[in-house]
Amino acid sequence: MKLASLKGPTRDGTLLLVNSGLTRAVNTDGIAPTMQYLLEHWEESHAKLLDAAESLECGNERHAFDFQAALAQGAIDAPLPRAYEWLDGSAYLTHVERVRRARNDKVPESYYTDPLMYQGGAGSMMGARDPIRAKSEDWGIDLEGEVVAITGDVAMGATPAEASAAVRLITLVNDVSFRKLIPAELAKGFGFVNGKGANALAPVAVTPDELGQAWDAGKVSYRLVTHINGKWFGNPNAGDDATFSLFDLIAHAARTRELKAGTMIGTGTISNKDPATGYACIMEARVVEQVEQGEPKTPFLKYGDTVKIEMFDHQGDTIFGAIEQKVVPYP
Amino acid sequence: MKLASLKGPTRDGTLLLVNSGLTRAVNTDGIAPTMQYLLEHWEESHAKLLDAAESLECGNERHAFDFQAALAQGAIDAPLPRAYEWLDGSAYLTHVERVRRARNDKVPESYYTDPLMYQGGAGSMMGARDPIRAKSEDWGIDLEGEVVAITGDVAMGATPAEASAAVRLITLVNDVSFRKLIPAELAKGFGFVNGKGANALAPVAVTPDELGQAWDAGKVSYRLVTHINGKWFGNPNAGDDATFSLFDLIAHAARTRELKAGTMIGTGTISNKDPATGYACIMEARVVEQVEQGEPKTPFLKYGDTVKIEMFDHQGDTIFGAIEQKVVPYP
Repeated sequence: MKLASLKGPTRDGTLLLVNSGLTRAVNTDGIAPTMQYLLEHWEESHAKLLDAAESLECGNERHAFDFQAALAQGAIDAPLPRAYEWLDGSAYLTHVERVRRARNDKVPESYYTDPLMYQGGAGSMMGARDPIRAKSEDWGIDLEGEVVAITGDVAMGATPAEASAAVRLITLVNDVSFRKLIPAELAKGFGFVNGKGANALAPVAVTPDELGQAWDAGKVSYRLVTHINGKWFGNPNAGDDATFSLFDLIAHAARTRELKAGTMIGTGTISNKDPATGYACIMEARVVEQVEQGEPKTPFLKYGDTVKIEMFDHQGDTIFGAIEQKVVPYP
Repeated sequence: MKLASLKGPTRDGTLLLVNSGLTRAVNTDGIAPTMQYLLEHWEESHAKLLDAAESLECGNERHAFDFQAALAQGAIDAPLPRAYEWLDGSAYLTHVERVRRARNDKVPESYYTDPLMYQGGAGSMMGARDPIRAKSEDWGIDLEGEVVAITGDVAMGATPAEASAAVRLITLVNDVSFRKLIPAELAKGFGFVNGKGANALAPVAVTPDELGQAWDAGKVSYRLVTHINGKWFGNPNAGDDATFSLFDLIAHAARTRELKAGTMIGTGTISNKDPATGYACIMEARVVEQVEQGEPKTPFLKYGDTVKIEMFDHQGDTIFGAIEQKVVPYP
């Protein structure tokens, strides 16, 4: 099942069912008005939505409309337009190793058993075609391409196995970061506030069964393809080199608190050991350039720059649709 | 105007108007169903609520019920039962100074101009009478008594003056902390995830005008009175020794992002230079004991312990009602 949200009439948007080819969508009125409602009423709503999804797939939904046209018109919100909890892990330690190597530092041993994770803000997610807005190009505007799990309710102290049963949907995120603000902020010791901007989700979120065999023990074994200004930037495989699965990350987040339906858990920037797979964030490219070429070459994003982040199945079809954003000045 | 939320029927609760003496409450059906709705529709709803509040104050609301009885029955939720953003500052540097002194460390100069702040989770706030639940007494369970501002929409880059216009409501929070998990977590550099539990708000949140002269340039000049197991623990004045006002903290949080209606901004643990005013968290008492008596004396909270946090006006009347919680094992 593939799900999206139309913008409005409330800040929670309007839940949509989308067909597997992402060409047609239909309002789920009468089943679940919003994604947040669905996540809180999954058991009751899921079977009815499956029936409606089957009708849509067969072309039998009379009220279906052109999803791609709605997307192009800017009418599509993030599948979950706002989330109460956004907890972002660092599953790909290659990313952490490269960043640390550039400052002659090592990854602490504990990082391989105790996930690094921060709590971010998700009170206003961007839709996949919404612009990245910043008040200054000097912030060091960067993308971070990641996989995200959206959960149902999770009990405090849930094990990774228990966490696995709570995964409702998978999608992609562009976790926007302001690199030049981060060193001073992290030095204060309390994590990120100014260093992270609003984030965008892919146009659709999908139930794990849509990923078939590629959904493997809490990892998604497909490549995340990123382009910057139309130029290939990387295609690391999200199933490779992940020290922690999404199940591990959910369990870590739930160690001392209940997670409520609609919690979003991120993998952290996807990164493979194989340098041929490129990058899913600019900072990592820059630290590798620093080590190998003596100075960083890839600039951070400027106004007018575009980023495109997507993931394809083995047939080459887009799974979640593309995050395609342009950087603009905040008005 | 004083506002609260009844638990249910949805996770957002049901908005209540409460009279100034906190004895009677009435459902605001037809004006604003939930606190989150009100915060998103403040301009339209505010005048109607003021009329209803006047009727309630005069005893003219036929459907009003006994607020204290509802509170005692556990029927009252946090005024905002869940929030999309919870950003907690450190306005009281006395607190930070004491903690650092205990480890022979100083407060960096920058802390006096650049607020320390972390992003916490608020997807499931506790009502003022809900128990603090933990899976282990060994986590070092602690309270933190603070003042909280709940905002309307705030633009990215808002100044403190602009932020002041966005303050909708003021209340108190018990920011529950698990002290023994914090050093290792902060050492990882990404802030708090496991080190902070769910938080409780006071029974009611009030519009700033309810504070009269005590609402002074983004600070609340009243004492926060804390008792642990019925024993006086502290009464620092929230208007004294605050390096940053709530306006400053909102502006800091909004530096690189929009804050959306329903954002909660905390002052951090209230602490005065005058040692006679005691404490609003156990850790601070312990670090002072460490320095002055060679070892910490005040134990962290154990199952069965109770905490009470409240604030009184100059007539000795409770403003927000008391946060009164018992520590219990998570089932």
